[in-house]
Amino acid sequence: MNTFGRMFRVTTWGESHGRAVGAVVDGCPSGLELDEEDINRELRKRRPGFSILTSGRREEDRVEIMSGVFEGLTLGTPISMIIHNRDVDSAPYMEIKDIIRPGHADLTYLEKFGIRDWRGGGRSSARETAGRVAGGAIARKLIGLHGVEVLAHAIEIGGVRSRADYADFEGLKSTVERSEIRCGDPHAEKEMIEKILNAKKEGDSVGGVVEVIVRNPPPGIGEPVFLKLDAYLALGAMTVGAVKGVEFGDGFELARKRGSEANDEPYLQKGRVRFRTNRAGGILGGISTGEDIIMRVAVKPTPSISKPQKTVNIKTLKEEEIQVRGRHDPCIVPRIVPVLEAMTSIVIADCMMLQGLIPRKLK
Amino acid sequence: MNTFGRMFRVTTWGESHGRAVGAVVDGCPSGLELDEEDINRELRKRRPGFSILTSGRREEDRVEIMSGVFEGLTLGTPISMIIHNRDVDSAPYMEIKDIIRPGHADLTYLEKFGIRDWRGGGRSSARETAGRVAGGAIARKLIGLHGVEVLAHAIEIGGVRSRADYADFEGLKSTVERSEIRCGDPHAEKEMIEKILNAKKEGDSVGGVVEVIVRNPPPGIGEPVFLKLDAYLALGAMTVGAVKGVEFGDGFELARKRGSEANDEPYLQKGRVRFRTNRAGGILGGISTGEDIIMRVAVKPTPSISKPQKTVNIKTLKEEEIQVRGRHDPCIVPRIVPVLEAMTSIVIADCMMLQGLIPRKLK
Amino acid sequence: MNTFGRMFRVTTWGESHGRAVGAVVDGCPSGLELDEEDINRELRKRRPGFSILTSGRREEDRVEIMSGVFEGLTLGTPISMIIHNRDVDSAPYMEIKDIIRPGHADLTYLEKFGIRDWRGGGRSSARETAGRVAGGAIARKLIGLHGVEVLAHAIEIGGVRSRADYADFEGLKSTVERSEIRCGDPHAEKEMIEKILNAKKEGDSVGGVVEVIVRNPPPGIGEPVFLKLDAYLALGAMTVGAVKGVEFGDGFELARKRGSEANDEPYLQKGRVRFRTNRAGGILGGISTGEDIIMRVAVKPTPSISKPQKTVNIKTLKEEEIQVRGRHDPCIVPRIVPVLEAMTSIVIADCMMLQGLIPRKLK
Amino acid sequence: MNTFGRMFRVTTWGESHGRAVGAVVDGCPSGLELDEEDINRELRKRRPGFSILTSGRREEDRVEIMSGVFEGLTLGTPISMIIHNRDVDSAPYMEIKDIIRPGHADLTYLEKFGIRDWRGGGRSSARETAGRVAGGAIARKLIGLHGVEVLAHAIEIGGVRSRADYADFEGLKSTVERSEIRCGDPHAEKEMIEKILNAKKEGDSVGGVVEVIVRNPPPGIGEPVFLKLDAYLALGAMTVGAVKGVEFGDGFELARKRGSEANDEPYLQKGRVRFRTNRAGGILGGISTGEDIIMRVAVKPTPSISKPQKTVNIKTLKEEEIQVRGRHDPCIVPRIVPVLEAMTSIVIADCMMLQGLIPRKLK
Repeated sequence: MNTFGRMFRVTTWGESHGRAVGAVVDGCPSGLELDEEDINRELRKRRPGFSILTSGRREEDRVEIMSGVFEGLTLGTPISMIIHNRDVDSAPYMEIKDIIRPGHADLTYLEKFGIRDWRGGGRSSARETAGRVAGGAIARKLIGLHGVEVLAHAIEIGGVRSRADYADFEGLKSTVERSEIRCGDPHAEKEMIEKILNAKKEGDSVGGVVEVIVRNPPPGIGEPVFLKLDAYLALGAMTVGAVKGVEFGDGFELARKRGSEANDEPYLQKGRVRFRTNRAGGILGGISTGEDIIMRVAVKPTPSISKPQKTVNIKTLKEEEIQVRGRHDPCIVPRIVPVLEAMTSIVIADCMMLQGLIPRKLK
Repeated sequence: MNTFGRMFRVTTWGESHGRAVGAVVDGCPSGLELDEEDINRELRKRRPGFSILTSGRREEDRVEIMSGVFEGLTLGTPISMIIHNRDVDSAPYMEIKDIIRPGHADLTYLEKFGIRDWRGGGRSSARETAGRVAGGAIARKLIGLHGVEVLAHAIEIGGVRSRADYADFEGLKSTVERSEIRCGDPHAEKEMIEKILNAKKEGDSVGGVVEVIVRNPPPGIGEPVFLKLDAYLALGAMTVGAVKGVEFGDGFELARKRGSEANDEPYLQKGRVRFRTNRAGGILGGISTGEDIIMRVAVKPTPSISKPQKTVNIKTLKEEEIQVRGRHDPCIVPRIVPVLEAMTSIVIADCMMLQGLIPRKLK
Repeated sequence: MNTFGRMFRVTTWGESHGRAVGAVVDGCPSGLELDEEDINRELRKRRPGFSILTSGRREEDRVEIMSGVFEGLTLGTPISMIIHNRDVDSAPYMEIKDIIRPGHADLTYLEKFGIRDWRGGGRSSARETAGRVAGGAIARKLIGLHGVEVLAHAIEIGGVRSRADYADFEGLKSTVERSEIRCGDPHAEKEMIEKILNAKKEGDSVGGVVEVIVRNPPPGIGEPVFLKLDAYLALGAMTVGAVKGVEFGDGFELARKRGSEANDEPYLQKGRVRFRTNRAGGILGGISTGEDIIMRVAVKPTPSISKPQKTVNIKTLKEEEIQVRGRHDPCIVPRIVPVLEAMTSIVIADCMMLQGLIPRKLK
Repeated sequence: MNTFGRMFRVTTWGESHGRAVGAVVDGCPSGLELDEEDINRELRKRRPGFSILTSGRREEDRVEIMSGVFEGLTLGTPISMIIHNRDVDSAPYMEIKDIIRPGHADLTYLEKFGIRDWRGGGRSSARETAGRVAGGAIARKLIGLHGVEVLAHAIEIGGVRSRADYADFEGLKSTVERSEIRCGDPHAEKEMIEKILNAKKEGDSVGGVVEVIVRNPPPGIGEPVFLKLDAYLALGAMTVGAVKGVEFGDGFELARKRGSEANDEPYLQKGRVRFRTNRAGGILGGISTGEDIIMRVAVKPTPSISKPQKTVNIKTLKEEEIQVRGRHDPCIVPRIVPVLEAMTSIVIADCMMLQGLIPRKLK
């Protein structure tokens, strides 16, 4: 249950305030050039503590590759990666360890396991996603060899919408890269940041929507009927904490359209079938058409807020008030962006391997 | 890839115009009372041909249980079920077998497999879901033993919204049962039917939104971090053809709220922690809270429409016009309702078994 | 648990005296030529009732392919196969339904499931293997396209050993094909038959050893560390009823040798590394070397014997005597031969697919 | 492929001369008392370097638990364990990095991966099993809570057989514990040691046979038809390097017996069905009877010998002579004993969890 993927498999482990978090990638082809910087580059995208907009925790988040790489090349054996937890302060959690934090998994972990690591949210912390990003970095390299790129960007934060268009992929990529909140529309970005800062000031938080684009996907990937590409991507996205919804192409808007407005019109371009529109989001019958794959993901506002909230003390079984202190992002959307890129890269790499489009040995 | 589930596993097989479709259920506990009528009851919900609103194909859709049941009880061995394809007319498909039907999987199946059964959509037909409904009927019985119920209903069709409220579960259940289009709001139902008939008249189709409710779910089910309950339910829903999006609780609306508005407030009810609202849709951190689980699913309009559409002939490699004749529902939402109930029942049964809440032998 | 394989997956279902037995093959590449005769040919090898040496039950054992094949080619979708149970006589089992048959799974099925289908052994009957043979027939065709062949033969029955040598593969194949007991040594065959008939006369049974040869396997298949080729083949063989042991190459004899006697000496043959001996049985470190793969499998004597045996009545909880009537082979070795060929073919097909040596689409 | 188990899953990683080896255990119930000493105790059984009989490498082999344990109890989250590689000397391997070591996986790893870590055998080294032993230590604790014990002992080394009888389990346990080569027969032990020392003196090696006993197994575990308990145990044993065969109960000897001699006679003992003999090795139809489970495993002689052997240089493509220096056990049987205990414990824990006999939360 802590393993994701069929051929390209990522197992993550670790609690927020334990010794470390990490991942084991199994099934990566041999002969892929890989070093720690490939991983660290992605990890930097999700690291907290480098902006007034994100939480105060400052992690170096440098990976150590413990196995599976030899003389700069992957061996085809499991790649074990460790990211130590350094800047850990469990004190604020100690005070509230018996108090259910609203919107968090405190209660449900107790229901399921009868025990929980209350320090920093334990396993249910966003810190767990560092392992995914490490695994995703390898998947990204792998599919990149075949010209496939994955880009995610914030298209809505605190109700403000971005007008960035994925059609200009290269432009979008560079704008997003420069954006502190990974938004592709500098105009909207300003407003979004204001919304975040306002919420922060009031001890509150905001949510948003992320768009994930797979550029240049090979046609024919995805496995009917129970591992359809969209279903698999949705699974990947929904396993990320705070995600409450996912849609493809025109998504929920399609429910309001007629068939004649919803179908994409096929045409011929140099002997290859293309589509004039991409309302389907690049997937038909669970299989990629070769058009860009478009997924949008709803992210709820950070549940940890310093505003007082009513809740329950699980030990005394009395109702209490809570003000969650710790160090929390007033908006997690920007930090979820690289995690969604990672999960998407893993799904695409896995589907390409399942389809035989990536060989087991690269050299 | 044609198998769904970990402990309670359903494998479906069959093409639309082949000899039969079917399912093998593996992992069902022994000692469950089961007969063919348990399955047929659910199959009747999805069968076409009994209304002007749905396609003209008339299938009896009666299951034959081939194995796994002895003297009225499941044996704990695989339950093989067959539903023969009787009322099959492949002629209309013959004419268009080389022409890509817009919105369908014709092209992608060719990309993936290099070959396709063009009769009635072959494996990508909605007919495949008969096997899921058969498997879901068993899952439903199993979780019903523990007081868990699954109900889905159309909450939007052709832009018309239902005002039915899942809070009155019993009332909703009986209204939906009586509704031809499985809508819980008789007022909205009328308008929806009108929308469907209008679309039909114009050779077009409409889509909609389905809400799925799990009533009385046990707390503590769902497996972090990669088989979270919501992720797993989303996977199940997204594997159903024509589904383009899924959300939980307040879903995409949560992206526009603040943390203080989005968190559900815990309180004590007879020593058990309950929540005053259910914006989370009954799931926190991927684990059930015990509150009702609420999922909403976007369904695109039927891609098969008789209006002329531009498309491509894959053999001549020329652009052509197509008018899809065959027998097609102008709106598939009502028929997707039982399929989503089936997939949801399977996920819940599987998660309950994984958590040890359903024993391997019932007698 | 009733599914075997990772990429090429076979799910079997059915009880001995139920309506039918069958298999669903999922993951078979598209574009493979396949008809029912391909399956029936293999099924004939395991059918009973055509010799004084085997049980009296006479099954036609003709498969019906229900899905996954269109115009003579596999579609890449699940191939569902059914073999009806026709010549069924449950009467002899009725009398002993509460009496534990020594050497059978009667007691353990009750322990596990709390219920059992006592007719003909239910799911634990050798009849279940018809589904495996059907699945194996497809695997055999698939690997045959790449020049890989699988042959099994009885090398010991009732203590009599065959001197057949797998080095002369073609000769062995044709001798085995002609042998009623699938023995490659006509001299030993005679003695073996005598042993079987003697045992039968005395209401007893005999066991034996089967050798399985994979001819011309590709080097590099098998997945370290937990799906090593030999481990996987052993898993496949051990899932066959009555199998009590398995060894590779010189097997248990290697335990008595010194390293200098056990290692195979590599040498060069036209630029390819070959081995002067094959004590390793074609596998090193769980990966194929390219030399013939050699597995030997111990088969216990048929537990059903008409000689009186002491046992227990599970209902009265009294000790009783039993004489198993029904129709039973005095030696099941010849009928296990095609089942081991099937399981081996499935493992090889699966490993070749995992290694990317068999593409997902053949046309 | 580097993950073993269904509910209780162990993923191992690491190369012999890399930074570390390790394991991630996923699916362990929450609430199990666990500390590093539980793991270290088992690791000491397999560590080399503490006897003239084993290889010269001296590893402390102390585990670090990185996650999944909090305040002395398992959390139900993945337990990540690391064992650093300290006493590493890759120099002797450098000289022979292009020369195929007979009996090793050098060639097959190259065939499969196109690249290999030649230092100390890389991933194919016995060092990989440290991760298994770590995982097995947890499984052992878990099944121990239910009174199930696993013991393995050398019953044959260099042709010398032990007369130790598993019927006296407690006596056997303590004798084996004291034995340097994990033999339960002090008389045979002496001779075995002599055989090992003689082989060593001559630059050669010896093999042997290990018997694995599961004491007090619950009846009803094992999953027909493709995860039968014996098949699953065989899979586990065969994944261990140097293992070339496996048998259950009387194993290959049963192939020479008649049915009347092979069947175990059931009788009643205080209302429970027991068996007068245990030729079946505690398993019928792939399900445990409740009698002791008996497995025997053939171990080939260490392939690394200092005697000169003819082989091939893969770079020059010339035939050469090799004398494997490094530090190697003249007999690996004693060190395989704890690895087989580990794999067996994992299989039993997994099957007990699958059957619902071990709950998901212990507190």
